[in-house]
Parts: sequence; C-alpha cells; structure tokens
Amino acid sequence: MTYCAAMKLDRGLVFAADTRTNAGMDKVSQFRKLHVWERPGDRVIVLLSSGNLAVSQSVVSILDEQHAGGDAGGDAVEHRGGLFGVSSLYRAARLVGEAIREVRAIDGPSLEASKTGFSASFILGGQIGSEPPRLFQIYSEGNFIEATNDSPFVQIGEHKYGKPILDRVAQTDMRLKAAAKLLLLSFASTLRSNLSVGMPLDLLVYERDSLDASRQRRIEEDDDYFKSLSDAWSEALRSAFADMEEFDL
Amino acid sequence: MTYCAAMKLDRGLVFAADTRTNAGMDKVSQFRKLHVWERPGDRVIVLLSSGNLAVSQSVVSILDEQHAGGDAGGDAVEHRGGLFGVSSLYRAARLVGEAIREVRAIDGPSLEASKTGFSASFILGGQIGSEPPRLFQIYSEGNFIEATNDSPFVQIGEHKYGKPILDRVAQTDMRLKAAAKLLLLSFASTLRSNLSVGMPLDLLVYERDSLDASRQRRIEEDDDYFKSLSDAWSEALRSAFADMEEFDL
Repeated sequence: MTYCAAMKLDRGLVFAADTRTNAGMDKVSQFRKLHVWERPGDRVIVLLSSGNLAVSQSVVSILDEQHAGGDAGGDAVEHRGGLFGVSSLYRAARLVGEAIREVRAIDGPSLEASKTGFSASFILGGQIGSEPPRLFQIYSEGNFIEATNDSPFVQIGEHKYGKPILDRVAQTDMRLKAAAKLLLLSFASTLRSNLSVGMPLDLLVYERDSLDASRQRRIEEDDDYFKSLSDAWSEALRSAFADMEEFDL
Repeated sequence: MTYCAAMKLDRGLVFAADTRTNAGMDKVSQFRKLHVWERPGDRVIVLLSSGNLAVSQSVVSILDEQHAGGDAGGDAVEHRGGLFGVSSLYRAARLVGEAIREVRAIDGPSLEASKTGFSASFILGGQIGSEPPRLFQIYSEGNFIEATNDSPFVQIGEHKYGKPILDRVAQTDMRLKAAAKLLLLSFASTLRSNLSVGMPLDLLVYERDSLDASRQRRIEEDDDYFKSLSDAWSEALRSAFADMEEFDL
C-alpha cells in the first residue's frame, strides 16, 4: 500500500508521500511517489500516486512524453505541451485522468482478470501562473474532485489511520510549517499502525504565488526531527489521556 | 459498517460496540451488537458481531438454540448446553466458529453469488469458572486468534481510525475505568471520521473473577460524559499539536 496526503491552505499547498511499495509481505521496495513538473516563475505541478505501481508509473510516463513531444497523446491539440501546455490546474487534472484511462485501456482487462485488479489514485496540486493554487484527488476512473476550504485535505492509499488527527486539527489558515508538521503526524500515526506504509517520506511545501518547488525534503528513517516528533506525540497523547476525566460506570 | 473493540487486561475485560447497521446510505438502522450469556458465579460470555447482519443474527440464534436444547447442533455431544455447557472459552470460540460455518453452508453460496458476499467477524471474551478471562477474535472462516499480553486489544469492523490511539496508549496493567475511557476515545475518533459507525454505544466492563456481567451501559448520543470526553480530546490534541516543535524545511 501507500499513504499520500496533501493540504490546501490560504498560504499555499503541502504534499507528503511515503515511498514503500509491496507485492505481498516479502517483496518490499522503495519508489518515489511524489512527482514534480516545474517551470520556475510559470508553474508548479505536483502529482502523488498510489495503487498499482505499474499503472502509476505508466501514467507518469505518458504525462512526461506529452510535454517531451513523444508519441503519447499523438497530435491532439489539447495534449500539446502536456502539463507544461495547459492553462489551468483543472486542465492538468483532465490530462492525468485521460492518462489513467489510456493505461486502463491497455492494461485494465488483464489486471481485472487477475486478483490484482486495476487500481490507481492520484493527488494533483500546484499553481499555474496567476490562477490560485488548486488541489485535486483523481480516481482510478479518471474523474476527480477538488479540495475546498470546507475540506482542506485530501488523502489516497492507506488513509484511515492518519485521518482522525487531520479531521481534528486541519484548518485552512494554518501556517505552512504547521501544516507540514500536521501531515508528518498523520504519517507517524499511519506508520505506527500499518506495516505497508514505510519511510522515507517525501515532503514538498509550496508557498502561494512563489511558482517555485524548491522546498522539498526527503525525511529518512533516522531523521531526528521526525523521530522526536513521533515520540513527543505519543507522550502527549498518553499524558492527555491520563488527564481526561475518568469513566464512571 | 460497524466498529467493535475489546481489551484484555490484568484486571479483566472491557468491550465496546456501536449499534449502526446500514445497507447503503439511506437504509440505516440500530441493532445491538453486544450479546451476553451469563450465569452469575459460573460464567460470563460476551460476543461482539460485525459484518452482514443476517449472518451475525443467525449465528447468535444458533448459539441460543444450542443451550435452549433446540434443533441447532442436533444431538452432537459437544453442543449439549451450548455456551452454557462448554468448560473453557476456547471451546466457546469453537462453538461460535462452527455456527459461522453452519450459516455459511446455508447462506454462503447465495451471498457469494451477489455483490454482498459473506462477511462476519466476531469478538468473543469472558470467563468460565476458575479459568482466567480470555479474549478471541473470530474470522468469517470460523477460525480465531486469542489476545495475549503483547496485543491486549482486538478490533472488528471499521477499525483503522480508532487503532492509532489504542496502539499508543493500551497497556495490560491499565485500570478497567481507564480502559473503558480508552475504548470510548477510540470510538470518538472513529465516529468523527466515519459515518457508517454510529451512536449509541454499548459498553461492558468485566472485572476478573467476578463472574458477573452487570457492569453494562448504553451510551446515548447526548451522553454528557462521552460528549465532554470527545470535546476535551479534540482540545487536548489541538493543544498538544500547537506545543510540538515546528518543522523547519
């Protein structure tokens, strides 16, 4: 499995993804699931992927070939330039959706005939020119929803363990550093409760109107901040628990 | 869906279950999922059920008929007296497993042929005579695992949202009141993050060697303690979050 999450805030966007893929318990590998298309000063587009690795890698290859002028997309006008050619994040989400459907047309029948099935879901976010930053969750059918101020976060993959903390703390007016801390706590809860999500993590903090994706960091297993955050959080939960009024039957 | 959880502690057992069942979003009903077989001074057996309601109700009916001397189980010696006839919790778990297999033999093929599928899982716990209290999780195949001191809690149904808090706080040497509070917090997280789990909750606290199941309570939607616990927990999480060291990219 995988866990990826992102937040849309007044001040920008924050993305986080783990790097574990596994086929069964004994075939565990590390793959980057955070992909960036960037032209500083013009656009930053970030894609997080979960599901079948073959499917998500194919989707990324198609998107890459579109702007490289390769075969993918042929000469259809809307594909010219791919993610570097579109004028809005909505159009970018449509390109991703189309790429998913293209992969499904090729691999879907064989995958559906096996126990594996066709699974893929994506988080797409970023900013293009003067359009405000936007954030989408894209389903394996290729359709998608957009994050709003009412629901400032989206999650894909093994999302349930890390949802309660997001439900309780996420606010659109958070500072970007606080949002990064919140996403890391959501990952800490998930990592602790589920073996299929694994370190290292990839984190990207995008500041609104910066059109710059340089604030990225890979957080390794032995990262001091992440370890102390996770430990301090356990301690804070235990202490908050002890302080709660006792139940009286 | 459903959420049920139970803990095995040095001092006894604590069980909790929600009461929501739903078939789709618009057919939501309330059913008790906590079942008790009790002969004070001799045995207390508690069963929590999740999955297809028709399956879990059939399992309970079979178990009831066994000790009532009905058809179920026929004259097989091991069924005589049913849950009131067995000499250990292990034997009780085997009876539940057999009841699940009996229902699967009858309803399984039709259910498997539909989108519904055959789903049922159970938590069984209690104490029989001088045997120490025991706690089992029983799968839809009728086999089961037993909770140990290393893993003092079991969960069935919509279990992921409420697992991180249990992973971090559960200890076998907790007081029963603290364990009840912990399970309620696990439910509070689940209720907040998932619509298919709903109030009221049923809670049963069993004190080791009491052979008495009278400490039960139904916690209604407007329960003051539960509401204040859930609010205080949100507040404590937000405050602990604010106190954590900031992330520096």
